[in-house]
Amino acid sequence: MKALVYHGPGKKSWEEKPKPVVTIPTDAIVKISKTTICGTDLHIMKCDVATVTNGRILGHEGVGIIEEIGNAVSNFKKGDHVLISCITSCGKCEYCKKGMYSHCEKGGWILGNTIDGTQAEYVRIPHADNSLYPIPAGADEDTLVMLSDILPTGFECGVLNGQVKPGDTMAIVGSGPIGLATLLTAQFYTPAVILMIDMDDNRLQVAKTFGATNLININQEDAIKKVMELTEGKGVDVAVEAVGIPATFELCQSIIAPGGHIANIGVHGKKVDLHLETLWSHNITITTRLVDTVTTPMLFKNVLSHKLDPLKLITHHFKLDDIVHAYDVFGNAAREQALKVILEA
Amino acid sequence: MKALVYHGPGKKSWEEKPKPVVTIPTDAIVKISKTTICGTDLHIMKCDVATVTNGRILGHEGVGIIEEIGNAVSNFKKGDHVLISCITSCGKCEYCKKGMYSHCEKGGWILGNTIDGTQAEYVRIPHADNSLYPIPAGADEDTLVMLSDILPTGFECGVLNGQVKPGDTMAIVGSGPIGLATLLTAQFYTPAVILMIDMDDNRLQVAKTFGATNLININQEDAIKKVMELTEGKGVDVAVEAVGIPATFELCQSIIAPGGHIANIGVHGKKVDLHLETLWSHNITITTRLVDTVTTPMLFKNVLSHKLDPLKLITHHFKLDDIVHAYDVFGNAAREQALKVILEA
Amino acid sequence: MKALVYHGPGKKSWEEKPKPVVTIPTDAIVKISKTTICGTDLHIMKCDVATVTNGRILGHEGVGIIEEIGNAVSNFKKGDHVLISCITSCGKCEYCKKGMYSHCEKGGWILGNTIDGTQAEYVRIPHADNSLYPIPAGADEDTLVMLSDILPTGFECGVLNGQVKPGDTMAIVGSGPIGLATLLTAQFYTPAVILMIDMDDNRLQVAKTFGATNLININQEDAIKKVMELTEGKGVDVAVEAVGIPATFELCQSIIAPGGHIANIGVHGKKVDLHLETLWSHNITITTRLVDTVTTPMLFKNVLSHKLDPLKLITHHFKLDDIVHAYDVFGNAAREQALKVILEA
Amino acid sequence: MKALVYHGPGKKSWEEKPKPVVTIPTDAIVKISKTTICGTDLHIMKCDVATVTNGRILGHEGVGIIEEIGNAVSNFKKGDHVLISCITSCGKCEYCKKGMYSHCEKGGWILGNTIDGTQAEYVRIPHADNSLYPIPAGADEDTLVMLSDILPTGFECGVLNGQVKPGDTMAIVGSGPIGLATLLTAQFYTPAVILMIDMDDNRLQVAKTFGATNLININQEDAIKKVMELTEGKGVDVAVEAVGIPATFELCQSIIAPGGHIANIGVHGKKVDLHLETLWSHNITITTRLVDTVTTPMLFKNVLSHKLDPLKLITHHFKLDDIVHAYDVFGNAAREQALKVILEA
Repeated sequence: MKALVYHGPGKKSWEEKPKPVVTIPTDAIVKISKTTICGTDLHIMKCDVATVTNGRILGHEGVGIIEEIGNAVSNFKKGDHVLISCITSCGKCEYCKKGMYSHCEKGGWILGNTIDGTQAEYVRIPHADNSLYPIPAGADEDTLVMLSDILPTGFECGVLNGQVKPGDTMAIVGSGPIGLATLLTAQFYTPAVILMIDMDDNRLQVAKTFGATNLININQEDAIKKVMELTEGKGVDVAVEAVGIPATFELCQSIIAPGGHIANIGVHGKKVDLHLETLWSHNITITTRLVDTVTTPMLFKNVLSHKLDPLKLITHHFKLDDIVHAYDVFGNAAREQALKVILEA
Repeated sequence: MKALVYHGPGKKSWEEKPKPVVTIPTDAIVKISKTTICGTDLHIMKCDVATVTNGRILGHEGVGIIEEIGNAVSNFKKGDHVLISCITSCGKCEYCKKGMYSHCEKGGWILGNTIDGTQAEYVRIPHADNSLYPIPAGADEDTLVMLSDILPTGFECGVLNGQVKPGDTMAIVGSGPIGLATLLTAQFYTPAVILMIDMDDNRLQVAKTFGATNLININQEDAIKKVMELTEGKGVDVAVEAVGIPATFELCQSIIAPGGHIANIGVHGKKVDLHLETLWSHNITITTRLVDTVTTPMLFKNVLSHKLDPLKLITHHFKLDDIVHAYDVFGNAAREQALKVILEA
Repeated sequence: MKALVYHGPGKKSWEEKPKPVVTIPTDAIVKISKTTICGTDLHIMKCDVATVTNGRILGHEGVGIIEEIGNAVSNFKKGDHVLISCITSCGKCEYCKKGMYSHCEKGGWILGNTIDGTQAEYVRIPHADNSLYPIPAGADEDTLVMLSDILPTGFECGVLNGQVKPGDTMAIVGSGPIGLATLLTAQFYTPAVILMIDMDDNRLQVAKTFGATNLININQEDAIKKVMELTEGKGVDVAVEAVGIPATFELCQSIIAPGGHIANIGVHGKKVDLHLETLWSHNITITTRLVDTVTTPMLFKNVLSHKLDPLKLITHHFKLDDIVHAYDVFGNAAREQALKVILEA
Repeated sequence: MKALVYHGPGKKSWEEKPKPVVTIPTDAIVKISKTTICGTDLHIMKCDVATVTNGRILGHEGVGIIEEIGNAVSNFKKGDHVLISCITSCGKCEYCKKGMYSHCEKGGWILGNTIDGTQAEYVRIPHADNSLYPIPAGADEDTLVMLSDILPTGFECGVLNGQVKPGDTMAIVGSGPIGLATLLTAQFYTPAVILMIDMDDNRLQVAKTFGATNLININQEDAIKKVMELTEGKGVDVAVEAVGIPATFELCQSIIAPGGHIANIGVHGKKVDLHLETLWSHNITITTRLVDTVTTPMLFKNVLSHKLDPLKLITHHFKLDDIVHAYDVFGNAAREQALKVILEA
């Protein structure tokens, strides 16, 4: 079969690889129908993720059709259409029982990381019963690709951890795909005000069409001052960090109200300053999280009932064998005005 | 009347001051029966608390007897024995309605800070109905002085914010009075393991008699290594920071398990490093809090039903007019093996 | 002044009464601008509420202008426009401190019940600082009258107690004003499916325009069978009882899924059957609640930010002195297709 | 092998049955070391549980040693000592993923009910990875038998559902084994007052040694009056129903405070009256639950750290092949002063 293979810093190719086979009884082999590229894949290409080695097939998102199952798989059968979770969950370790699949002792984020991933014609999914979801006939599969990673990540790490409540004033720092996924799912809880903060006017305008109530371009105005004006000097109830650099985490600390929540989503490469000299008495909560995808079934329900429209996040379509080109486009997201891309087999 | 008055860095005296009077209808005047000295008072003496100015009567803890009430006070009458909360609460601002009395728009921590405090023969308590608690006849008043500040602080900032649960493994970093108050009240939730970490063997031994299951002296062993050995390499579910310096907050980050909670109690004078480069994916929660004293009524119940014995925290007794000496003893806590002192009028 | 006075079963009149005055320092006198009639007022007229005696001015909802304040009122001054909560809260008893204003030791539902109410030119509001809310200049006052009672009741007793979550399937039994208020505010949490169950086609059609996803007329189809068909035989996650009779509470028990929540809002006049012989093992939760109005500030925010449009609930307008006629219309709600009426001074 | 087999109303025998074998890859065969008899087994003997048919091996509790595993079992191997949960959990259905194992689509309470159980020399455990727990070397196995059912039932259905908090006043209605298990585990949350209500003085005295603070014998005094005296007329914060008849559920309704929780544990055979005519406005919560055994790992930790001593519940020991006699003793619990019995292979 063909697959997108990582060959060290900056190097990848669409090349022939052996088709995967069931190796333990809980495995399933899935024929990929649609997949996408994640910001994390770009980090891998820059060699930022040490666990990914030369020869690895990338990708941790997608939908497909069951090709083969191990003898302990009972939720699925050959021919079923399935959504692949970016997080593999065994369902029987201490962490899975607590709903913290991200730290599954035999899974977690392994696809396209420590085992071969979904940017290929076929993929082996370990612990298939707990790591795949059935797709009802007629569901839009482009839409569902957004449920593999980006929507549960925005929702769990940003919205749930931020404890967004009706009436809240929240700020989302970073209007890229993950910030926008947070924006879409934050509206499940009907905050009164959603401030979107970024430096790219195009992305801010997109945020407006997605439901942001106020836009702040940090290149054009003093974000802290603006937030304080809009909140009568109190700051925001929830600040979501959706970038992953010290400056944006610092901004969250400057705009958080007493009693507020800072929810970090960003993948950070270095330590940040935490201003306990002022925050020690501010009754705030800071959270971090690798997505657990425990909310995927709920997101499914809200997609099917038209309470959530993930299609908004998709800007480009490619054929799967044109994936190298798709990486170029997605890698120049600002210039290309790209959010998420769909790769179709 | 006589009172302990702050006169700038390192200077204080027990001197004559005018007896306070009711100034607004919600005030009460309380004749102090017993008070104590807080670690914060020592910080004030070192000039660490900018809001305290020359001439201020210190103290924010104590029990006493109502001497006079304003015409809008309805919960109390002259002669009632009362517990004074370290936090003044108006009961009618946005924060008080949310149970966040620490940030009361007209109160918060003001006693012995921005208004005169309890280390005196009389004190004026604003918003008396919401800032005082009735003491039943026959209750032990030494015990109750511990409910003005230290026990709710340990409980709310450490135990509640740390979300201590039955079966948890927790570490308390710092075995001073506040760490010990956390230790006493953590046991309300029956954690399986409580590790006490300090550098003073005497205080660690005290912790053992208070219920700590394991002691770690960081001057004698590698605390991180020891914690990991005791937790099968996972770390602790809850780490309480009860010191207030970068090194101890750093230690908490090194020993926290995935999914764990770091609850900061310490009063920090400078920023700390937050290691998001590793913690971003560890699903942890960090909290800060100035005590709200919302749990004082509950603590009262558990003291009266003998589920909590705060007397353990009291090591020294003085007459109120011997307070300058008491400051000396309390200021040399390690040498004097002092925890909390009682000053009796 | 003029007021609507209750004179025993079925008897009321718009008559002259003494203008109220400040009697304790925490009182305020409010000149009524707008008020409304509640279903509870109709119950009173039928003599169902034993605490209401001959000579009582009815009404517990409204907006108005501060006419006079006691010397302990600090949140308001003469001339302020205010929203009156149906629940009076002292802010300083055990229940108020827990946010359970409905059981305030000196308040609760007293307006138009044990003290004179809002269907008058003036009303005395005890504990004004905690029982009134400021209205910003320019806000629509018809809209805000809906925040005195009906919206917090639907939200707190139905939505919050029912623990409605994104993706849930919920049923609301009863499509009258309170069921519709539940429907409007349930959407703050974005359930996937909202089934509205009633016997009046007109009210069901109104529910559809308010956001119900499915309508069931129990006079035309088997409600239990229909719900089970729509939920793959599981039943609903949340069932809200918004009528107050045994049959509707029974229906809730028949359609609740394992793990589900039954939230009672209805005012019941007699006991009901609880089928523990089947429900004991179904992991369900049943709640009751008299509204606390703790969420009024949040509702205010969502009205001002256009996330909630209470105007939909208002079908009729009258002059305040035409209130006897308004009672007739509201008392024949089905025939008149009436939901809420506004009475304007 | 030998097993205790049900043969219709009142009939059982210790007889030869075929040794079970692995039938699906997720099964394990466990050689029973110790088991016990549950009150539910007595109900079965009276023909109260329609799902149990002639020929069924009874029993749903026990500890043992793994004899054989299916090829998809990965948490255990032959020779491992294991605790058997009374609830079988597949770990991969909708309910298991929500932690509601009691309603597992392929499991739930099936042992000694719809499949053969643990009162035998060997038992087949389906979904072994999720339905067994490893026992560390040296742990006391009598103690652990109490973790199969009775302790998680008391804790989850009574204590967790009742939301027992530090400082609470709670009542437990019924001082049999399940009420006593509730009493032991309620103390994890340090309520201030625990009232035990029963009609058997011996069981009440046992409750006192287990930590009850007040005893009420309903045959000797007016329970409602006594509870109201002890609670200043307010009633209790939490009432746990641990009997399963209308009278005891009625009592819970009469003693619950506004805002309180009634947690039903009892297995009810008929409907009960729910007094919504008074409770509709009392802000109460009523819960039902079949135990999920999600807290078994936590209970394990607290047993191993000596925070919980289940041995107190064991009054009698028998050899496994003396089980018919053991049923007689356990079936006359009051006369024999029996709580739980241990049957040893």
